[in-house]
Amino acid sequence: MEALQNTLFLDACKRRPVERTPIWIMRQAGRYLPEYRAVRANHDFLSMCKTPELAAEVTIQPVDIIGVDAAIIFSDILVIPEAMGMHLEMKEGEGPVFDSPIRNEEDADNLNQIDAYDNLKYVLDAISLTKRELNNRVPLIGFSGAPWTLLTYMIEGRGSKNFANVKKIIYNNPELAHRILYKLTDAVADYLSAQISAGADAIQIFDTWAGILSPRDYLVFALKYVNQVIEKIKRNGEPIIYFPKGVHYRMRTTADCGADVIGFDWTIDLTKTRDKIGNKVAVQGNLDPTVLYSEPNFIRREARKVLEAYGKGEGHIFNLGHGILPDINPEHARALVDFVKEESSAYHLKEGKNIIAS
Amino acid sequence: MEALQNTLFLDACKRRPVERTPIWIMRQAGRYLPEYRAVRANHDFLSMCKTPELAAEVTIQPVDIIGVDAAIIFSDILVIPEAMGMHLEMKEGEGPVFDSPIRNEEDADNLNQIDAYDNLKYVLDAISLTKRELNNRVPLIGFSGAPWTLLTYMIEGRGSKNFANVKKIIYNNPELAHRILYKLTDAVADYLSAQISAGADAIQIFDTWAGILSPRDYLVFALKYVNQVIEKIKRNGEPIIYFPKGVHYRMRTTADCGADVIGFDWTIDLTKTRDKIGNKVAVQGNLDPTVLYSEPNFIRREARKVLEAYGKGEGHIFNLGHGILPDINPEHARALVDFVKEESSAYHLKEGKNIIAS
Repeated sequence: MEALQNTLFLDACKRRPVERTPIWIMRQAGRYLPEYRAVRANHDFLSMCKTPELAAEVTIQPVDIIGVDAAIIFSDILVIPEAMGMHLEMKEGEGPVFDSPIRNEEDADNLNQIDAYDNLKYVLDAISLTKRELNNRVPLIGFSGAPWTLLTYMIEGRGSKNFANVKKIIYNNPELAHRILYKLTDAVADYLSAQISAGADAIQIFDTWAGILSPRDYLVFALKYVNQVIEKIKRNGEPIIYFPKGVHYRMRTTADCGADVIGFDWTIDLTKTRDKIGNKVAVQGNLDPTVLYSEPNFIRREARKVLEAYGKGEGHIFNLGHGILPDINPEHARALVDFVKEESSAYHLKEGKNIIAS
Repeated sequence: MEALQNTLFLDACKRRPVERTPIWIMRQAGRYLPEYRAVRANHDFLSMCKTPELAAEVTIQPVDIIGVDAAIIFSDILVIPEAMGMHLEMKEGEGPVFDSPIRNEEDADNLNQIDAYDNLKYVLDAISLTKRELNNRVPLIGFSGAPWTLLTYMIEGRGSKNFANVKKIIYNNPELAHRILYKLTDAVADYLSAQISAGADAIQIFDTWAGILSPRDYLVFALKYVNQVIEKIKRNGEPIIYFPKGVHYRMRTTADCGADVIGFDWTIDLTKTRDKIGNKVAVQGNLDPTVLYSEPNFIRREARKVLEAYGKGEGHIFNLGHGILPDINPEHARALVDFVKEESSAYHLKEGKNIIAS
């Protein structure tokens, strides 16, 4: 296999010297791109996930159009519960919905044990195909939902304001929660190992709902299982990014979870966070996604603040603090990427290929 | 006017010695109580707000039924935008909705300047009547939305996931945002001063959407105006509680906003927070509201953790980290209140009426 032409992202994940800060954008393969909408017009969301040619096509679009330093495979975190036998529907305007959420032991027992090569082969095929079509231009990121976030969706059935159902279960029947989390841990680790085997150069674990938990419950129901997932993943140094959205506590414990990179949303102060954990892990983030609604000059001003907040030196991957919103002007996304490419070298000590330790 | 029989809440707000930790519950006058639902069955929500007899009745219910140490006037934070001329509808299952949200200068100019004695007299009447009917048993809390949170509702029109509309305005047209925030600051200060004149013993400022802002934007768009509101409020030592939900940054600056008490949600570590700001302000919170779904034994265990987290000494008001949910068993709310009443004296040095400085 030939070497990657752009290793900025992988180097930054490992806190190795880079000439500039790499950037990719969560949900970069998505509805804000007209080229994506053109594909989506003829296929529903799940069919796109399940058709490697289509998944590869939209995965590569932002590399060509926006110029990001890494691709992330087009898929959804809910493919695991779907593979376990839950019926998933994508409802326009509402997002993904499970019509029969899990509420008791019987529902939990009905979940299938899954094998990634069997039940999620379409994702692996999409990864292999995308790798071939990317032709080593940039690395490819695979991903999964974290056990806690998958459990939350599986119990709530859909997005929620108070997360009453999953909270009822963790408080009244924690054994049931742990039983499902345990199952999910195996499934997620197996799935991510398979993604790496299929060609993923790095992995992101999305823990979108970690922040609804109290600091103690976060350790017990979310982070513990992420730890186990990371321990179980078979990899050859491929970096792992953990993104516990909304979590602003237990930073040092989070940095010890085994991930190479921790992702942060826009409410987190990157200066303080780097002071706390920057000697252990790289940091990904954290521009407010809604900043991209504003004019390019304002976007650049705000992006510079993110670079300033992290400061000089290695270990920063630029990203938004959450997924790009569907009604963002693609020119604004490109303005952000261009700015980071042009301006971020001032924050690094490496010049050209002469590595100077920072 | 006779003296209050229960001054625990007011004493704790001022960090004066108390025999035990006072407790009240956000949204304690609400749908989880069958007695409330009995009133609500015959009146819509806004009519209840606007009819002092009904508002007083449901305000006092939790004092009788749950045994809280303070009442909070039954009302809604959106009465200010409604008084300014925005049409407010309470949609079942969705909550409050403004059909014509504010999106530009013209909409902003169309907002009426309001006078609390004129446009919100029904709230003041409800406060006066409730004070009479409470007969000095417990203090009465008045409240308002903070300018930022009111602006968010006025621009979004309803609850939101990404708050794209208000973010668009603060990033693309900050002058418009500041213009409305300035108007709201006057209205909120005037309204809260009038509530105190009408008999409110304390005031809570709800900044429900403060946590959607980056730390810097929080200072510029939320906290700055709360500062101004508090400066403008005419009061005679009545304590002010500021509740910036979701905010976990700029704690020391928040503690300097002029409020006597800062309220926190359940993701905040009370031990660390008290270490940071406990010499400046009292602290309110912060049991996860969903803990009340569990059995009383579990509720007591979790409530004890909150008492432990704050620790011994003065300046703690027990509350949930957000409003009580509508499907909570009232027995569970009572179990929480009873527990705090019985067990919290161990955290205080004052015995009976012998004040021992802590």
